[in-house]
Amino acid sequence: MSSPLRVLTGITTSGTPHLGNYVGAVRPTVRASRLGHVESFMFLADYHALIKTGDPARVQRSTLEIAATWIACGLDPAKVTFYRQSDIPEITELTWLLTCLTGKGLLNRAHAYKAMLDRNAAAGAEPDEGVTAGLFMYPVLMAADILLFNAQQVPVGRDQIQHIEMARDIAASFNHQYGEHFVLPEAAIEESVATLPGLDGRKMSKSYDNTIPLFVPREQLRKLILGIVTDSKAPGEPKDTEGSALFQIYQAFATPEESSAFAQAYADGIAWGDAKQRLFERIDAEIAPMRATYEELMAHPERVEELLQAGAIKARAVATPFAARLRHAVGLRPLQAAVETKAKADKAALPSFKQYREKDGQFYFKLADAKGRLLLQSLGYASPKECGAAIAQLKAQGWSASAALHAMAAVAEDASAAEADAALQVLRDAA
Amino acid sequence: MSSPLRVLTGITTSGTPHLGNYVGAVRPTVRASRLGHVESFMFLADYHALIKTGDPARVQRSTLEIAATWIACGLDPAKVTFYRQSDIPEITELTWLLTCLTGKGLLNRAHAYKAMLDRNAAAGAEPDEGVTAGLFMYPVLMAADILLFNAQQVPVGRDQIQHIEMARDIAASFNHQYGEHFVLPEAAIEESVATLPGLDGRKMSKSYDNTIPLFVPREQLRKLILGIVTDSKAPGEPKDTEGSALFQIYQAFATPEESSAFAQAYADGIAWGDAKQRLFERIDAEIAPMRATYEELMAHPERVEELLQAGAIKARAVATPFAARLRHAVGLRPLQAAVETKAKADKAALPSFKQYREKDGQFYFKLADAKGRLLLQSLGYASPKECGAAIAQLKAQGWSASAALHAMAAVAEDASAAEADAALQVLRDAA
Repeated sequence: MSSPLRVLTGITTSGTPHLGNYVGAVRPTVRASRLGHVESFMFLADYHALIKTGDPARVQRSTLEIAATWIACGLDPAKVTFYRQSDIPEITELTWLLTCLTGKGLLNRAHAYKAMLDRNAAAGAEPDEGVTAGLFMYPVLMAADILLFNAQQVPVGRDQIQHIEMARDIAASFNHQYGEHFVLPEAAIEESVATLPGLDGRKMSKSYDNTIPLFVPREQLRKLILGIVTDSKAPGEPKDTEGSALFQIYQAFATPEESSAFAQAYADGIAWGDAKQRLFERIDAEIAPMRATYEELMAHPERVEELLQAGAIKARAVATPFAARLRHAVGLRPLQAAVETKAKADKAALPSFKQYREKDGQFYFKLADAKGRLLLQSLGYASPKECGAAIAQLKAQGWSASAALHAMAAVAEDASAAEADAALQVLRDAA
Repeated sequence: MSSPLRVLTGITTSGTPHLGNYVGAVRPTVRASRLGHVESFMFLADYHALIKTGDPARVQRSTLEIAATWIACGLDPAKVTFYRQSDIPEITELTWLLTCLTGKGLLNRAHAYKAMLDRNAAAGAEPDEGVTAGLFMYPVLMAADILLFNAQQVPVGRDQIQHIEMARDIAASFNHQYGEHFVLPEAAIEESVATLPGLDGRKMSKSYDNTIPLFVPREQLRKLILGIVTDSKAPGEPKDTEGSALFQIYQAFATPEESSAFAQAYADGIAWGDAKQRLFERIDAEIAPMRATYEELMAHPERVEELLQAGAIKARAVATPFAARLRHAVGLRPLQAAVETKAKADKAALPSFKQYREKDGQFYFKLADAKGRLLLQSLGYASPKECGAAIAQLKAQGWSASAALHAMAAVAEDASAAEADAALQVLRDAA
């Protein structure tokens, strides 16, 4: 039996969950987290929130609201590892380790940063006007979020694919420099994220100020729903479901049968007031039981805190030993380890691969024997990943059998194919 | 009695200490650390080392060598807080908090980064070729190193002054956004750092590959000193002390009387071989007792590790509670604190200052009464520090008495000077 797929999701704690978040993210994610063969890591991204807002009360309030929302909506902290980013000190440490081997050029190409450059250019401002180092470094923090848990899949919208690619690049650079430690994460692209129209008919979004908060008292929810824009058709006039925000929202909560019945009511000329009342009742039927839990949790933040502390313990059971391995890999080691390692190295000299990057930006490897004599020399590879793959193939198959590589690597002048094969055999035996 | 001056020094762990480091840094710093009215924090900057090298064994070895060197040279871990950077997890966390409010434009102006841009431009390469995010973010890590301990003074060479200025700027931005938490550090500029010539007569430096390691076995030290370049004057010929690397190195170790005697020997035509032997004996007289301690420590890295662990405990006794306060300031708080804070705020609404930055890049404040009505509105200040100073003055003296501020802030249209004075009085009473 294969091990479960590890999936990681973060939610930035800078806002209050609304119906659009519920339909587009919370509900589907909670459902997915209940599937059998998935190991879910979900975290409250409060370090990310600091990039977006300098308002401490908002970060704090949003963290509580979002945590309470997810639990009220059925996230099971016993099944999912549910934690707050800032409870895991290994995350900022890994961020720094990754910062040291991330090319600045990679970050220059991030869409979010480039969008700021474009905006400033259009406004005739300095290129980096209003850009914080936080915005610029965001992809590295996100890479640390993912890589610390060696998550295999990260569900993202299309606009976030680039960040996952960057996390892969950064992971590959680390693996290239320090050995294979990271799984390269994959973006699980959510092609059809359900979006909900807001009060004004545009996509429901905090930036349009057209949201309906998920958890407001029943009466307030009713009033908000009464405020959804409609056309001015009179009661009795048939109404279009096409382009009706009201209808779209209804669909997001109803069964197909209920939606058909609602469409029939549209055709029959239901008054907008009555349609809104039906929408309100339908949403409230789904929300009300969760609202009770939410309000209970909001009244007892210490219970939410307790759940998050338990989540942090679960998360750190993974993160702490792995971070220790990564610290060792980069050379942050207890000092007595220095001597042990050197002693070990003195005892058993082996042939070795060396990977490096040349000024041309390409990645190379060479194989030397135990005394450092060159046996194989590669040409340049475009990425550390391809370079690493070639080495892996050589280690597995030997030189003579890896014919596909012969165009990309050559036996050194003073060496022979037989010597390369022998050295690779020694490495295989020692592994 | 005033509290002792807190001074912080970091040493990047990427090399092996040589005689130049000893004369220029180790010896004077150890002496200064023994002065009465100074509280010294000294750390092994291994996170910084990762910017310079991707060689784990080198980082590890250098950390041991540098720690053993400082202790062998008389640093007293009972008096000085002596720790390894990577043992203090609060440092990378603070680095992230500071990253979020550091303008990218500030980092663009760092000399070290600009030097890379210039080098790349001269070579016709891409501007950020070979620049890692680590090099770019270095000043923020350094700011965290300093600010986490609220160090008042940082001894630096002229080339490092800008980094201290950046740490001040970052601290001021944080104070402006989240309240007064950081002391603004000062650079203690070392005008006359003693430099030593190396084997080839140029300044002794790893980058010239002309160093004499501080701790090598006695015989090896002698051989290295025999390799110092001299002119070709024969024995018996008078020799110039001016421009003689040998003489300069001798001076760095000798008393004035010894130096005079050595100058006389030059004038009397001492043979170069004899002069080198005298230099060797003089250096070895100072180094030999320390060498014994050094070798003992190198043979017992676990003892050095133990000292560093004890240092980490001392350092974290300062860092951990202060980091908790900073986390609270930015909004990373236990969730139950949310409710408490809100309850407190509901109970006692007070007039309040709000500081902010406008698109023009300048810093502003306004004073509103308990209900949020505007009382005072400032003009723009060039820096958060000046803005904060103006607020402090208003808080201390009231509006009418702060005549100097009348040019920089005005009473709002619907308010009066008396109302502003009353609000400021309320704030004073509540403080």
